[in-house]
Amino acid sequence: MEHQVFVLVDLLGTLAFAISGALAAEEKRLDLFGAFVIAHITATGGGIFRDLCLGALPPVGISYWRYLACSVMAVAATFGVRGIVTRLKHPVLLFDSLGLGLFAVVGAHKALAHGSNVETAVLLGTATAVGGGALRDVVLNRVPIILEREIYAVAALVGAGVQVLGEQFTWAVTVTPWFGAAICFVIRFLSLRYAWSLPLLARKDGQ
Amino acid sequence: MEHQVFVLVDLLGTLAFAISGALAAEEKRLDLFGAFVIAHITATGGGIFRDLCLGALPPVGISYWRYLACSVMAVAATFGVRGIVTRLKHPVLLFDSLGLGLFAVVGAHKALAHGSNVETAVLLGTATAVGGGALRDVVLNRVPIILEREIYAVAALVGAGVQVLGEQFTWAVTVTPWFGAAICFVIRFLSLRYAWSLPLLARKDGQ
Amino acid sequence: MEHQVFVLVDLLGTLAFAISGALAAEEKRLDLFGAFVIAHITATGGGIFRDLCLGALPPVGISYWRYLACSVMAVAATFGVRGIVTRLKHPVLLFDSLGLGLFAVVGAHKALAHGSNVETAVLLGTATAVGGGALRDVVLNRVPIILEREIYAVAALVGAGVQVLGEQFTWAVTVTPWFGAAICFVIRFLSLRYAWSLPLLARKDGQ
Repeated sequence: MEHQVFVLVDLLGTLAFAISGALAAEEKRLDLFGAFVIAHITATGGGIFRDLCLGALPPVGISYWRYLACSVMAVAATFGVRGIVTRLKHPVLLFDSLGLGLFAVVGAHKALAHGSNVETAVLLGTATAVGGGALRDVVLNRVPIILEREIYAVAALVGAGVQVLGEQFTWAVTVTPWFGAAICFVIRFLSLRYAWSLPLLARKDGQ
Repeated sequence: MEHQVFVLVDLLGTLAFAISGALAAEEKRLDLFGAFVIAHITATGGGIFRDLCLGALPPVGISYWRYLACSVMAVAATFGVRGIVTRLKHPVLLFDSLGLGLFAVVGAHKALAHGSNVETAVLLGTATAVGGGALRDVVLNRVPIILEREIYAVAALVGAGVQVLGEQFTWAVTVTPWFGAAICFVIRFLSLRYAWSLPLLARKDGQ
Repeated sequence: MEHQVFVLVDLLGTLAFAISGALAAEEKRLDLFGAFVIAHITATGGGIFRDLCLGALPPVGISYWRYLACSVMAVAATFGVRGIVTRLKHPVLLFDSLGLGLFAVVGAHKALAHGSNVETAVLLGTATAVGGGALRDVVLNRVPIILEREIYAVAALVGAGVQVLGEQFTWAVTVTPWFGAAICFVIRFLSLRYAWSLPLLARKDGQ
C-alpha cells in the first residue's frame, strides 16, 4: 500500500519528463531515436544521480524495462497528442513542471527510505527533480531551465521539503506525495503565469 | 584465457575512442594537454559511468595507468598517423565507430560479470559505448553524435545484445566479443555509407 | 589535529570555487538563485564525483549544510566585495585558481584515506580540482577552462602529486596541504601571468 503510491508517482513523473524531453527533441528536429534518447535521459537522469548518491545500485533508470517503456510511450504520445499539445503555449514547460513536483517527492522519499538525514533528503529530492531537465538542456544546447529567471529549483525544494515534513510527522502516506507534488507544481505554475522571479545580482554600474 | 580477450577488447576500444577524442580536440585547435584531456574523457567516460552504476569502485578509468597510457599514445598517434588519417573523410567518425562496438561488448560483459540481469547488461553496454563520445561532444560544444540523424546508439544496442546472447547461450568466449563488435561497427558503417536513418518525428504543418 | 587541517582546506576551496561560480553566473546575468545553483555546482561538483568514485556515500556535497552555507556566503560576498573584486582583471580566474590548489590536495588526501593507490589518488585529486569548474563552464555554455590554452589540469596534477608524496614520506601533516595548494596556485598564476602554454597539435598545412 505504502510503496505502491511512490511507484505510481515515480512512473507518472517519468512519463511527464519523458514527454517534455520528446517535445524538446522535436523542437530541435531530431530523429525518432534521438527523441527517444533525449526522452530517456530527461526521465531517468535525475533518478540515476540520486541512486548513485545513495548507493542504490544499479540505478533503477537502467535496471527496469518499465522506464524504457515510459520513454517509448512518451515518444509515441508526442505524435498522438500533438493536436492537443501544440495548442498549449509551452508544452515542454508544462510537462517539465509536472515531472518536477512528482520527482521531488519521490527523490526525497527514496533518500529517507535509504536512511538519509533530513538535509540530504531535501537536497536529493531537489536534485532528482532538476537533474533530468538540466541534462536534457545541456545535451540539446538549450539554456538550462534551472538558470532561467523563474522559480524552478526553489519549487522543487519546497516539494521535497513537504514530503520530508510529511514523513517526519507521519502524515497520511497516500496523501503527502500528491500534496507535495501539487504545491511544487502550483508554485512553479504561478511563477511562470505571473512572471515571479528572484532578484538579479545588483549591478551599480547600470549595465 | 576468458578474461584476457576482454582486456584486449577494452584496450583497443580505449585507444580508438582516445584517438577520436584527440582528433576532435585538434579540430577545435586545443593545445596538447587539452587534447589529452578530451582523449581521456572520451576513452574513459562511458566506462566510469558503467563502473559507478555497478558499484565497481574506484572506476577502472581512474585506477590504472594503462588507460592514461592509451590516451598519451592516442595523442602521439594523432601526429604520427596524420598523413594517413587526414586522407580519411571523417576520421573522428571512423575511430568513434570502432570504439562503439568494442565498448558495447565490454560493457555488457562487465555488467553480466557483476551479476546484472539481461536488461541492465544491454543498457549498460550501450551506455558504456555511447557515454564517452557524448561527453566529448558536450564538452567540445559539438552536436552530440548520439543525436545525429544516423543510427548510432541502436548499433551499440545490437552489439551489446549480441554479447549478452552469446553469454546466455555460452558461445565461444573468444569469438563472441569480436562478433558483437563487428556487427555494431558494420551497422554503424553502413548507416553512414548509405545515409540510413530513422524517421523524423512527423510534422503535419510542413515546417 | 590531522583531520582539522583538511576540513579547513576543503571549506576554503569550497568558498573559493563558490565565489568563482557566483561571479561567472553574474557575468551571464543570472538571477540570485541561478547564481546560487552555479556557485553550488562549481563548489561541490568535483567532490561529488570524487565521492562517487570512492564509494563515500552520500557525497559530502549533498550531505552537509555547511557546503550550502559556503555557497550562500559566496553569493552574498559577490555583492559585498564587488568593489574590490571588479578592480581585479579576471576575478573568476583568481578564485578558480585558489580553489584548484585547495581541492587538488583535499581530493588526493581523501582518496588515500579511503585506501586508494597512488595513481588513483593523483587522478582523483586532479578530478576533484577540475570537476566543478568544468561543470560550471558546461552548464553556463562557456569554453571549459580546462581546455583553454593555459596550464590548468597540469597544475592540479602537480598539487595532488605533492600531497601524495607528502603522505608517502610522512611530511608534516599541517604543512603539506598548504604547500601543495600553493605550488598548484603558483604554477597556475605564473602560467596566466606569462602566458605559458603547452604546444598546439602541429599542423603541417599551416591552417
